[in-house]
Parts: sequence; structure tokens; C-alpha cells
Amino acid sequence: MSLLVVGSVALDTIETPFGRVSDTLGGSATFFSAAASFFCPVQLVGVVGHDFPVAELEFLQRRGVDLAGVERASGESFRWSGVYNYDLNSRETLETRLGVFAAFQPRIPEAFRDARWLFLGNIDPVLQLDVLQQVRAPELVACDTMNYWIEGRRDELIRLLEHVNVLMVNDAEARELSGEFNLLHAARWIQALGPEIVVVKKGEHGAILFTPEVIFFAPGYPLEEIFDPTGAGDAFAGGFVGYLARNGAVSSEHLRRAVVYGSALGSFAVERFGVRRLMDLTAEEIDDRVMHFRELTAFDQPVAIRPVP
Amino acid sequence: MSLLVVGSVALDTIETPFGRVSDTLGGSATFFSAAASFFCPVQLVGVVGHDFPVAELEFLQRRGVDLAGVERASGESFRWSGVYNYDLNSRETLETRLGVFAAFQPRIPEAFRDARWLFLGNIDPVLQLDVLQQVRAPELVACDTMNYWIEGRRDELIRLLEHVNVLMVNDAEARELSGEFNLLHAARWIQALGPEIVVVKKGEHGAILFTPEVIFFAPGYPLEEIFDPTGAGDAFAGGFVGYLARNGAVSSEHLRRAVVYGSALGSFAVERFGVRRLMDLTAEEIDDRVMHFRELTAFDQPVAIRPVP
Repeated sequence: MSLLVVGSVALDTIETPFGRVSDTLGGSATFFSAAASFFCPVQLVGVVGHDFPVAELEFLQRRGVDLAGVERASGESFRWSGVYNYDLNSRETLETRLGVFAAFQPRIPEAFRDARWLFLGNIDPVLQLDVLQQVRAPELVACDTMNYWIEGRRDELIRLLEHVNVLMVNDAEARELSGEFNLLHAARWIQALGPEIVVVKKGEHGAILFTPEVIFFAPGYPLEEIFDPTGAGDAFAGGFVGYLARNGAVSSEHLRRAVVYGSALGSFAVERFGVRRLMDLTAEEIDDRVMHFRELTAFDQPVAIRPVP
Repeated sequence: MSLLVVGSVALDTIETPFGRVSDTLGGSATFFSAAASFFCPVQLVGVVGHDFPVAELEFLQRRGVDLAGVERASGESFRWSGVYNYDLNSRETLETRLGVFAAFQPRIPEAFRDARWLFLGNIDPVLQLDVLQQVRAPELVACDTMNYWIEGRRDELIRLLEHVNVLMVNDAEARELSGEFNLLHAARWIQALGPEIVVVKKGEHGAILFTPEVIFFAPGYPLEEIFDPTGAGDAFAGGFVGYLARNGAVSSEHLRRAVVYGSALGSFAVERFGVRRLMDLTAEEIDDRVMHFRELTAFDQPVAIRPVP
């Protein structure tokens, strides 16, 4: 049930209304692995520069993440810096320094090429397709993308999606990709390109799963404080794909629960700066939060109101 | 289990990307009554002008709405006119002509003063308080308000809320009233003023119930087409309070189901222009949609992930 993730490993400088951190551990593959490692063994493929504090990745290794695919290249590490506005719903990118990520050509180690579960983090669709060709017979391929690729690599992205089972994007990305404002229509449009499963992440408003048979909705978890939204989407993806990989099945019932586990991991990710909350998180806390999610939406079979009194 | 509603009865001119209607039946008390009448007898108090097409209210009467409290005044009826933008998430008010509504002094007919359930639609908090004083011993008082009163009648609104059990507002209103961006904090702030139950309506993003014991979340129903959002909040309120009144109880379980019935009524209201969909709606359709809501969020007890593999 090994789960392979390819994506960025970065150093983030983040400012929120609650404070500021510099060069903190970040990147899509980092958040994804930190979350997915609660569910199954993870194999990480990415690149870091000569200046990367590799010791900070040790917590992943202790949790069963195989870092043999993390290439160390000469040059600077990928750095991102951004400021969130007061309501944490929008952010401004101050600087993106690609460093060694600019020339990243993912090479999947031989030992990883039999991975059954694959997550293509948000990188150039050309590279995502290249990774896909190096993995022999994945049972499930999930991927993320962003507005930058939707605009700049549209044709390549659409070619990639033919080979993808699960597309996980936020609501703005689903709308931009499909040209449909209504999310139901957007999901159906994306499904017609290939991915039978579409997960639309809506931040504080929750997430929606669309399959040919099911529409399922998980709310945003009502947190006392949202500290730093960075990485919430990747933590969600790690919980979602990790749950499926752990159970080795993709039935409707597994998919529903995977959305809730994903939502739980996303809700923890935002409680502290960067990846910190995912470092000290426990499986018990995750299970407890999933039960809280259940309480949030469960209701008894109602008494029917027909016939009209 | 009689339910009394006081609010506006209006003629709306609405433009959406799907078309335009002129002088169509609208108003908070109209939408509320149309929805609540599926659950219990409703008593409506409001005012219309000499030019009002009273025959259009007959469908309410046939559904058990007592119109004895609808005063006919000399002067023009209340008219509202607005245009929705392409995504239906925001609207511009083109014109508000208060007409006879400007001098509205709700007089509750003697036969209505024993109402057990009371909904104070979105009118001046001074009038809402006045209505409250005319009703002898209501078991539950629910009310709505809007930014106009939050800004212009803040002190009066806060005095009113001391006597209110359920405040039903949208997310922007909850935030403006409380000065808290986080909806959990906003709800706790409002609860401290009096209403032990706060329902925050978030349009396409669903609705959240806050009680001292429970937080419950219902999603927005994934509709193929949202035709006209006018009145959705009042239809929600009608389904919510109507369900409670029908069952004569306000336990946590009843409140959860009331939110779902409210969401169902709100989702129907937007399927056609104005109040039209609520005119031909049936109790069977409502029950079916409630079961669909259940499918949207239900998931099996998950297999716990502890201990970490």
C-alpha cells in the first residue's frame, strides 16, 4: 500500500495577523507526506538545494516517509514568501524564488516505481506526466494543480488528466479550468476529461466530493483560531489519499470517509505556522476530530412531513 | 402549534442572468409563510397597499395561512427592485419604495396573541420589539435582521435580542453585528446578548447552527441551476421555525433536523423566480430532498487509524 508523492519541498516565509516565520519547512510534498504518513508508508520525490536544513525532514523519516527520492542539487532551495490578509481568506505572494526547483526533473528511484498509489503535487503538468510514465502500474493517480498551470499549460494539463483518477483542486481552480461557475457543472466537465473523482476544496467552507455515483460534502471544521492556512490543501490531499491507500479500496464509502480524514488533516494544518502542527499530531487526535466531524453533520432520520397537516 | 410571522409583503422586480420579472410576489413574511405552511398553521401580519394584487396571496390561504393580520392601507405597496450579478452571489438594489410599509405599525389581531411560535421578519427592531410586547407568552421567538438595522438601530436591536431565542442571520450580518470575523466567536458573542440559538446562513456554502451544546452544519444543496436567490433566507427560516413548531420541541435533535428542513426549503426557493417554486412544491418533494441532504453528508463510522501503523 505504498504511496508515492512528487512535489515541492520548500522554505516558506509567512506573515499572518498572528505573526511571522522565516524559512520554515513547507512545500506541497512536505505537507502531503506529513499528513499521509499517519495512514501508510510514503515515498517522497522532490529536490532541495545545498542550503536546505535536511535535519528538519527527520520527523518525516521517523513517521515512515522514505526520503530516498529527495535529490540534493547544487543551488538555492525553493523559497516562497507571502502575507495573508486579516481574514486569512486571501494572500499576496511577496516572492517566489524557484532555485533548484526551476530545473527539477523528477527521477523516480527504481524501488519506488511499483507504487500503487500516486499523488502528483502541484508542479508543471509536463513533469507530472513524466512522473506518471515512470511509475509502472499505479492503482490510483491523484493530482493537484493551480491557476498558473491552468493558464500557462492548459493543453498539457488536459492531456495529463486523461490518465488521472482523482483531481483535487480548490473552487476557483475548478471554475477556471472548466469555465463553469456552478461547481456541479464544473465537476461534470472535469470528469468528462478523465478523472472520475473530483474533490473541490473550499477552505473554511469545506470540501465536496463528486464521483459518478455520489456527491458528498464535508464542512470546514469550526476552529477557535485559524493560524496559518498554508499547506491546508496538501494536508487535505495527504489525509484523503492516505486513507484510501491504507484501506486499499476506493468504494463510495471509503471515498466519503477519505474526504472527512482529509478535512481533519487540513483543519489541523492551519492550527499552527507551517507544518508544525502536523509534527506533534497523533493518530488519536485525528480519530477524535473525525468523530467531531460526524457530530457536525449527523442527524436522525427525520419524521416525514407528508401528508401536509 | 400556531406560528405567527410579522414581516414584509412586497412586490419585487428582479433581474438575474436568467431573465427578469416585474412586480412579482415577494417580501420576508410571504416567503416565510409559503415555506412554514408545509409544517403548521401560520398567522401572517403585514401591510399591503391599495394596488396590491391580493388574489396572489390566495395560495397561502389554501395552505393554511391566516391572512386576517394583513392590513390593507391606502397608498402604494412596498416595492423592491434589484439585479443579481452573473454568479448570483451579490446583488445591487436598484430601488426600494417603502410605500405603505414606511408607516407600518404592526397590530396583532386578538386571535393571534396567543401564538406559541413567533418569527420576527426583517423589519425595524423597534417594531419587532413592539410586536413581541403584543404576544402573550411565546414559547420560542426567532428573528432576522439586516446590515441596515445593525448600523442604524444597533442599540434597539441589542435590546430586542435579550428577548429572542433564535437569531437567524447571514454570515456578513453575524460578523458585522459582533465585530468578530470568526463565525464561532461571532455566534458566542451573539449568544451572550440573549439568543441561545444562532443560525448563520451562508448561501451556497450552507448554514451553521450554534447552540450552547451543539454545532451543526448543513451544506448548500448542489443544484443544477440557481435561478433567483431572492427569499432563500426567509424560506429557510420558514422551514426551520415551521419544523420546530410542528414538533413542538426544541431539543438538539429537533434543531439539527430543523436546519436541514430549512436548507431544503431555501434550496427550493431559488429554483424559480420569486415565490413561484414554493407555490407548486409538495411535502413529498421536501421529504425527498431532506433524504438527499442526508446522503450528502452521511458517512459510516470509520475504522480508527490508531495506533499508527
